[in-house]
Amino acid sequence: REALGAREPADAVRVQGWVRSVRSQKEVLFLHINDGSSLESLQVVADPSLEKDLTFGSAVEVQGKLVKSPHRMQNMELQAETIRVVGPCDIWSFPLKMKERHPLEYVRQFPHLRCRNNTLGALLRIRSQATAGIHSFFQDNGYVHIHTPIITSNDCEGAGELFQIEMSSEAKESAEKTHFFNVPAFLTVSGQLHLEVMAGAFTHVFTFGPTFRAENSQSRRHLAEFYMVEAELSFTESLQDIMQVMEDLFKTVTSTVLSKCPHDVELFHKYIAPAQKVMHVTGNNCNPVVISYGEAVEILKQAPQTFTFKPEWGCDLQTEHEKYLVKHCGEVPVFVVNYPYDLKPFYMRDNEDGPQHTVAAVDLLVPGVGELCGGSLREERLPFLESRLQRLGLTDAYQWYLDLRKFGSVPHGGFGMGFERYLQYILGVDNIKDVIPFPRFSHSCLL
Amino acid sequence: REALGAREPADAVRVQGWVRSVRSQKEVLFLHINDGSSLESLQVVADPSLEKDLTFGSAVEVQGKLVKSPHRMQNMELQAETIRVVGPCDIWSFPLKMKERHPLEYVRQFPHLRCRNNTLGALLRIRSQATAGIHSFFQDNGYVHIHTPIITSNDCEGAGELFQIEMSSEAKESAEKTHFFNVPAFLTVSGQLHLEVMAGAFTHVFTFGPTFRAENSQSRRHLAEFYMVEAELSFTESLQDIMQVMEDLFKTVTSTVLSKCPHDVELFHKYIAPAQKVMHVTGNNCNPVVISYGEAVEILKQAPQTFTFKPEWGCDLQTEHEKYLVKHCGEVPVFVVNYPYDLKPFYMRDNEDGPQHTVAAVDLLVPGVGELCGGSLREERLPFLESRLQRLGLTDAYQWYLDLRKFGSVPHGGFGMGFERYLQYILGVDNIKDVIPFPRFSHSCLL
Repeated sequence: REALGAREPADAVRVQGWVRSVRSQKEVLFLHINDGSSLESLQVVADPSLEKDLTFGSAVEVQGKLVKSPHRMQNMELQAETIRVVGPCDIWSFPLKMKERHPLEYVRQFPHLRCRNNTLGALLRIRSQATAGIHSFFQDNGYVHIHTPIITSNDCEGAGELFQIEMSSEAKESAEKTHFFNVPAFLTVSGQLHLEVMAGAFTHVFTFGPTFRAENSQSRRHLAEFYMVEAELSFTESLQDIMQVMEDLFKTVTSTVLSKCPHDVELFHKYIAPAQKVMHVTGNNCNPVVISYGEAVEILKQAPQTFTFKPEWGCDLQTEHEKYLVKHCGEVPVFVVNYPYDLKPFYMRDNEDGPQHTVAAVDLLVPGVGELCGGSLREERLPFLESRLQRLGLTDAYQWYLDLRKFGSVPHGGFGMGFERYLQYILGVDNIKDVIPFPRFSHSCLL
Repeated sequence: REALGAREPADAVRVQGWVRSVRSQKEVLFLHINDGSSLESLQVVADPSLEKDLTFGSAVEVQGKLVKSPHRMQNMELQAETIRVVGPCDIWSFPLKMKERHPLEYVRQFPHLRCRNNTLGALLRIRSQATAGIHSFFQDNGYVHIHTPIITSNDCEGAGELFQIEMSSEAKESAEKTHFFNVPAFLTVSGQLHLEVMAGAFTHVFTFGPTFRAENSQSRRHLAEFYMVEAELSFTESLQDIMQVMEDLFKTVTSTVLSKCPHDVELFHKYIAPAQKVMHVTGNNCNPVVISYGEAVEILKQAPQTFTFKPEWGCDLQTEHEKYLVKHCGEVPVFVVNYPYDLKPFYMRDNEDGPQHTVAAVDLLVPGVGELCGGSLREERLPFLESRLQRLGLTDAYQWYLDLRKFGSVPHGGFGMGFERYLQYILGVDNIKDVIPFPRFSHSCLL
């Protein structure tokens, strides 16, 4: 990358990387070398006598002079004096082929080699910059980062979709079939409740880590292991504050990615994504629309199309509904607020409204992906929470959560954003398996 | 924090936080309010008539004037006009008490409340800054961040210590006892092999995430869920390069922490850590010593003390040995290099030396903690790796790993650093359970 961006010629330059192309002419040999630091490769010009073992995919070390390139396509090129093949590559058995634009489905079969593909390389650089951008956004805004636990004894959200943990079979036998942790333990589905613990001491906290669902789904939007960014804000009494943070996070991280990896993003927008899908990401006209759940249901009822699931107040919004709402609003991000009380988990704040009873929840729907973020104000009032937990028979399990409301409770709220869905959205990638280094889903856990 | 650091008085200031102390005099009421943004609390001066419900631990919102404080101990104080108790706190059942320095063992019993304790609050701010510092260090040095998987079908390092994953019992029955992923799946013990995949396309990669061991240990140095920073460098032929990155990482992150949270670190060095334990962290004289495993064994053999485990070439270094070596070298960090071939995993690079056969491995031992980092050059030569895997009967399981050596293999190496041990070391904290927000260990998974 340094060599590619150099302004001045230089002697005795050493470059290490992998061969992306070899073109041999009578008088001269052209190589392209890439070391993963950028999408672009460095052109190497060499004497054809140096060609030995130089195949696509092999690892090389080249020494020579960096000079201005006579070609318009590149700034600098390297005139090789020596080329050393560090690691050869058998092109006949290597599943990636020179200059071929392999479909994403094809490279997905080779999780240990696909990072050497241009598209996946670009994705991983973007993912890395987005990760850094998320940490910077929260640090710059005074949030304390919390490592919420991966293993938890809570099983709050729908027990059927949880992964349970045990010692591996050998160890288990010797321990006479007791639980390692004494209690059943699960992989976390969200860091929210643990962040709420921290929101009792810090006014702004966030976490960014793996979460898990044992959903038996092969959908292009679901993984068994995926990453979530979650934030919690204390002394917050309005959903508007939560929505503002979602929007700021989205805009800041996206502008970081666009400025740090313009070429990598361009690859996706040019070759992978249908153009209309991403125009709202890079354009200025990406201000979200806010509608209530009630309004959403009315819009759906008046829709000129028939849905598989009939829209009705009190029912969950299905993917087909989300799609229609986003289209109806002009293919822009849509915040849907104030969902039915009975649809949502116990911790969401009662709006005490009528006749239709709602909670202060918000979902962010975006074009092409559907639900990107979900959040709510949390029920900070002890009596409300106590009576709700009691009706659900969960009072004993959540005594610690009730404690948070007994000792200096504050109005607070937060949200989670699916990191892979975020990447799908800004890049226009159809399948979630293509935006994570090692996808895990039902029937598949390669490597 | 802003109010505390203000240079100029200000009117109509609003402060939100939790009451850390209440002192009522005849004419005046003194409060200390903390919102988690810093160790120091803001002093509020109010009329005693405002005292209603103001107990230790309650959440309040105070409006008033920020003025220069007449006391030497603080810069500014807030003259309250109104105080609103947002959430009261029942001090009789609240396990934390005003102005008491609770032992760490005591607050550990209340994982949902201990972040409101000064020491844990300081720890979490430091942990957050160290996390940010680690991401910055690698980003600034051109590393690509990789989310290595948490769930893996590899079970490379000692199967007995692994956690296995299954669908929770209910879901499992309906799926008729097949594996969710078709194959047995485990929680990762290290991201190294997956980072090595990425080191075949990027010259510098890192990961920073949770790792797991099902060790039945109650030790002050072990957790079932802990965080590791791991890095992998391509085109690296010397252990010295790996050691240099370890040292740079340590020094850069530590200086970030010291400059961003000086008061929080001071709390630990003053009240928690024995002074001699941390002098090498903050002092300039913290350059590590390098000795070979062979030299280490000789030093131990000549030691004037008796060990429980007799030091012998070919045996693992025990905690007692590590302690002695660090003491022997002057209580400084010690790199031990070149371990016996038969002691170390298959992926470490054969030194082809004699008569005593070693691999290019390195461990970093530090005072008070023992092993902080472990790393090695990886065996990049296909024939060496093939014959070693064959002898271990692992050829089939690691076909994908052998592929990495067939297609453009490069000399590479890397290391891992235990994040909690790092925090223990720089802060002088004796028990690892006190440097992580929610500790998980055998027989315990609270919340």
